[in-house]
Amino acid sequence: MFRTVEWKNNTVVMIDQRLLPEKEVYRRYRSHKDVACAIRDMVVRGAPAIGVAAAMGAALGALRIKAGDRKAFRKEFGKVATLIASARPTAVNLFWAVERMRGVVESNPGLDVPALKKRLVDEALRMHGEDIEINRLIGKHGGRLLKSGSAVLTHCNAGALATAGYGTALGVIRGAIERKKRIKVYADETRPFLQGARLTAWELKKDGIDVTLITDSMAGYIMSKGLIGSVVVGADRIAANGDVANKIGTYTVAVLAREHGIPFYVAAPLSTIDLKTSRGDLIPIEERDPSEVTHMQKRRIAPKGVGVRNPAFDVTPARLVTAIITEKGVVRSPYGKGLKALFK
Amino acid sequence: MFRTVEWKNNTVVMIDQRLLPEKEVYRRYRSHKDVACAIRDMVVRGAPAIGVAAAMGAALGALRIKAGDRKAFRKEFGKVATLIASARPTAVNLFWAVERMRGVVESNPGLDVPALKKRLVDEALRMHGEDIEINRLIGKHGGRLLKSGSAVLTHCNAGALATAGYGTALGVIRGAIERKKRIKVYADETRPFLQGARLTAWELKKDGIDVTLITDSMAGYIMSKGLIGSVVVGADRIAANGDVANKIGTYTVAVLAREHGIPFYVAAPLSTIDLKTSRGDLIPIEERDPSEVTHMQKRRIAPKGVGVRNPAFDVTPARLVTAIITEKGVVRSPYGKGLKALFK
Repeated sequence: MFRTVEWKNNTVVMIDQRLLPEKEVYRRYRSHKDVACAIRDMVVRGAPAIGVAAAMGAALGALRIKAGDRKAFRKEFGKVATLIASARPTAVNLFWAVERMRGVVESNPGLDVPALKKRLVDEALRMHGEDIEINRLIGKHGGRLLKSGSAVLTHCNAGALATAGYGTALGVIRGAIERKKRIKVYADETRPFLQGARLTAWELKKDGIDVTLITDSMAGYIMSKGLIGSVVVGADRIAANGDVANKIGTYTVAVLAREHGIPFYVAAPLSTIDLKTSRGDLIPIEERDPSEVTHMQKRRIAPKGVGVRNPAFDVTPARLVTAIITEKGVVRSPYGKGLKALFK
Repeated sequence: MFRTVEWKNNTVVMIDQRLLPEKEVYRRYRSHKDVACAIRDMVVRGAPAIGVAAAMGAALGALRIKAGDRKAFRKEFGKVATLIASARPTAVNLFWAVERMRGVVESNPGLDVPALKKRLVDEALRMHGEDIEINRLIGKHGGRLLKSGSAVLTHCNAGALATAGYGTALGVIRGAIERKKRIKVYADETRPFLQGARLTAWELKKDGIDVTLITDSMAGYIMSKGLIGSVVVGADRIAANGDVANKIGTYTVAVLAREHGIPFYVAAPLSTIDLKTSRGDLIPIEERDPSEVTHMQKRRIAPKGVGVRNPAFDVTPARLVTAIITEKGVVRSPYGKGLKALFK
């Protein structure tokens, strides 16, 4: 099929998601700075994939540190970690991955620099493998919730392209299909970056899954016609109370789902749950460049000089979330208690 | 400024709205068939503008009828009217305008063919002038409803470009500004045709009105941040019970407005109200070419062969509509009674 992010001969290789579906181009990165840029510029996107890319970027950075003694290495690795963590603000998996890599250094005071470098590369590779396994478990738990013969609406891309493979929201759909359920998918195109039109449609089509593309503005109409059985989306950060930060437009879909009595599911690994952030309104929301709104594939679609807002995420309050599907099972309201219990 | 549709030396001249905001190109039409194509291809769009263009198209058709006797003329004019009426199915102004032109022939049995032709051209010109006057009245009534210092969210383009001039929804905004109210506008980009990004942003900017462009997916977020004081949209057809067919995505905005306790206003002339259609679900919804969704300005954004839905309109139930603003005043629930009373 395709590989979202991969470690290859001490470099990081990623499919350039900005060029899909027209071109399948793999890019090779040799430094942590270039990986940080790739995350910021959305060569790679999707919270779990960002986490894996960040870990691999940190490993790349570690390999290139020249310091021979542990103390100096630790200081240099701290700079690597800080730079990668600054790439984007909303997806908590980025910070989680960087912290896990830092933990390797902190928790192995006996290792010398060459051994630490090897251990950091191993950890990044382990996180890649774990992510795929976690997604399969999310798919297994979530696949039970979908009804055969029904249609799922999804927003953005929470598929194999947003993870090391298999996907979270699309993992739930794949899990249902592996249970021999007949599932049809409606994909919101997800302006401004068009992850739905460009990535979800491409990925599902490649997998032979029945997918129909709609614009974001059509979700209400399609629901009002009784065509949607459930909504499944991913997440960039889930607060301790169950509020969900995800791609801009997710909140709108959640309000519409409630209006039509349609279950609204969020599929995400534990690494997306941020117990340190108590409520959704405390999650920093990235505001991206206005040109993403005024241009489409680099072509101008709005008059020059027009004012623009471009928040990349919104927050869906926990009250609109029917369940959160994780690798450890399905959590329902009250989320404060349920999410905490996952970490015990 | 600009002219949306104009009668000039026995031809119809229209600004090509498909090319805005990049190019300001005026096209000249010499036959009713070409005007029908221009309506279908959305050179001109917006229910009131379609109505005026249809009337002028019918006048063009009349001028070119060769029959010298009244009976033959009437038959030929019937064909002209039928062809124009088939251009698009949802906006009722199209049928209203064609019927009004037919009425000129039917109600003047004493006129010979040259006199009828002149009368038909006069009628089309009268409808053009009336439309601007009607919009100014809508703006006068609706302008009262908006609070100074507040922001209005609008969807699609119900402005001067959607009418003979001034606009319905944007007419309400202009009416408020003429009352010295400070009004800020948020414009949904309105995929797939991008009437918001291309037309509303262009038209308001040209008029010096403070406008901020957002994608359709951002409306919920912007409302949740308390930034929107009211929603004002146009309509393509209003059923006798107050259900409103308008550009796809309007229903989603109405659900969001209700969720946030924001008034949702519809601005439309009486020619948009269709008392013969009792409920919104009886309004035919045009499904347009999939390429409008899979392509953006002729560039492909989705994988080849993907399934697509492209309904051009949706229906907002009357229960979500705070008020309907017409040239005869503001109507509130119960709409069945209120709308009927307008025609007395």
